[in-house]
Amino acid sequence: MNKKKILLLATGGTIASMESEEGLIPGLDAEYLCRHITGASENYDITTKDILHLDSSNIQPEEWTFIAKNVYEAYKKYDGIVITHGTDTMAYTTSILSFMLQNLSIPVVVTGSQLPLTHPLTDAIDNLRYAFAMAASGVPGIFLAFNRKIILGCRAVKVRTTGFDAFESVNYPYVGTIDSNGLNINHKVLPNWDGDCTLTDTLCSDVFLIKLTPGLDPKIFDMLLQLNYKGIIIEAFGAGGLHYIRRDLISKLEKFTQKGIPVVVSSQCLYERSDLSIYQTGKMALKRGVIQAYDMTTEAAVTKLMWALGQTLDAEKIIKIFGTNYAGEITI
Amino acid sequence: MNKKKILLLATGGTIASMESEEGLIPGLDAEYLCRHITGASENYDITTKDILHLDSSNIQPEEWTFIAKNVYEAYKKYDGIVITHGTDTMAYTTSILSFMLQNLSIPVVVTGSQLPLTHPLTDAIDNLRYAFAMAASGVPGIFLAFNRKIILGCRAVKVRTTGFDAFESVNYPYVGTIDSNGLNINHKVLPNWDGDCTLTDTLCSDVFLIKLTPGLDPKIFDMLLQLNYKGIIIEAFGAGGLHYIRRDLISKLEKFTQKGIPVVVSSQCLYERSDLSIYQTGKMALKRGVIQAYDMTTEAAVTKLMWALGQTLDAEKIIKIFGTNYAGEITI
Repeated sequence: MNKKKILLLATGGTIASMESEEGLIPGLDAEYLCRHITGASENYDITTKDILHLDSSNIQPEEWTFIAKNVYEAYKKYDGIVITHGTDTMAYTTSILSFMLQNLSIPVVVTGSQLPLTHPLTDAIDNLRYAFAMAASGVPGIFLAFNRKIILGCRAVKVRTTGFDAFESVNYPYVGTIDSNGLNINHKVLPNWDGDCTLTDTLCSDVFLIKLTPGLDPKIFDMLLQLNYKGIIIEAFGAGGLHYIRRDLISKLEKFTQKGIPVVVSSQCLYERSDLSIYQTGKMALKRGVIQAYDMTTEAAVTKLMWALGQTLDAEKIIKIFGTNYAGEITI
Repeated sequence: MNKKKILLLATGGTIASMESEEGLIPGLDAEYLCRHITGASENYDITTKDILHLDSSNIQPEEWTFIAKNVYEAYKKYDGIVITHGTDTMAYTTSILSFMLQNLSIPVVVTGSQLPLTHPLTDAIDNLRYAFAMAASGVPGIFLAFNRKIILGCRAVKVRTTGFDAFESVNYPYVGTIDSNGLNINHKVLPNWDGDCTLTDTLCSDVFLIKLTPGLDPKIFDMLLQLNYKGIIIEAFGAGGLHYIRRDLISKLEKFTQKGIPVVVSSQCLYERSDLSIYQTGKMALKRGVIQAYDMTTEAAVTKLMWALGQTLDAEKIIKIFGTNYAGEITI
């Protein structure tokens, strides 16, 4: 049997980190990572490429575009692509790649680790093995592989700062699990992608996320208007609650929607969907023209808004984009 | 046996909600709630008091102070107090009450429901029964009772928008569980309170929470300085990462700390502790004088900062307050 051709793109992160006087910094290269994965060269035909050397706290929209371009240029030449990445912003990266690289014909699997590869107890070796297996699976899409689980890229959230079980698949079943049967794929939950792969990598990062706190002064919204933000996302309370007594947030939102600036309301609860149509406070916001994030993760909502605004500033079109399921990120 | 004297303070919320053309609005009173709890009047000597009729999205620092005052005025006359409250900001309220009302000599138990009391499938009746049992337990402290679990007030987070299992005890064991043994209290995890109960209810709500997103423009911090915020909390990436390439958030923080404005860094991961001393990006922030939230919930960190600033604007004292465990909110 021919070995599957896998491209390993390395971007830095804990997985590639070394001790320094300043704390852990990313320093190991993709070739080094590859040499330390048990069975890698025996099972796969691996090409490595170092494209970034960053702690993922420093991975920003410019890097997302750069990573997406690297994937797009390579995807026809390989059976699958593995991307190593820091865990801190990994779920933002897998979310935006899901929007930028639709209808991919191969698996693109992002992974990393909570302990550096060089640590005697590292989780890096296992995570890389899961990522390679998924990359060789022939199942197209953007995925995150971690701790024996394969998560749809736009449904991943980092929920633990140090535990190896760092990511959850939020409001969506796991795409795959690893056990003594090997890699088990849940084919029922794969995104319905067809057609040719497209690269839509123009972004507008003038987006501001507000996680609501009780008593938040609405003056912040005047300030955001002055700073010319093109889109706002509010992590509201529960199913989508916002305060309006004494400090009227709901009326303020109208200043944005009247100017055609989209306001997306999501929930600060990790699990389950927001729905503004249940409570009075939510219905009042809906009347002001806000867009509902429903069961999208915050990572997906933020990146989808940046991606949508990269294509159009027309509020009606943004609303339509938010009502469309592109990669499995939303249950309509 | 004498029945335990329990005070029921009602503040509104879904539990007391009725249908209206505008959506669900809080309308039922405490007396109505009480009459519908199986076994309530047989087992407890209940006094009811309606103090607010609000959706908890509208419960803000002014209401926290008002609720705290009501508890403080009543606690010597009752064996326990139950507070009914909307679920959306309940964890913020139980957190701030934990700071405002230290060394309480009785249980104060906050509860609510995901479905109104009048719904045939309501969780309100069960939750009220758990809350009454905990209020009659003699165990002093601020607790949240929900779905067969008793959570330390300052460790509660709402994690589900609709499921009955709406709250989790974050980075802390449950204080109690309800099963066929009745109410099981875990006495090992109760806060070490002694001395007289104090009411420390002065707050400064000029606090702004930023949940970091990749590419966040540091200009927001200049704006927050202009608006005279007295304290900032940043939900950073992972264990405490902030970006500094191209958009240097870390240097901006120094503008606050140099002016004596406290900056608290927590994690946007729900579980486990943040620790800025691990990675380079975190260490750089620590050098700029930021305060670590460690394993505090965001709800606890936000309310603790408002409470600390209510007592002092001296940055050194705020740092000391954040390094002190008052109610079980932080593992030092």
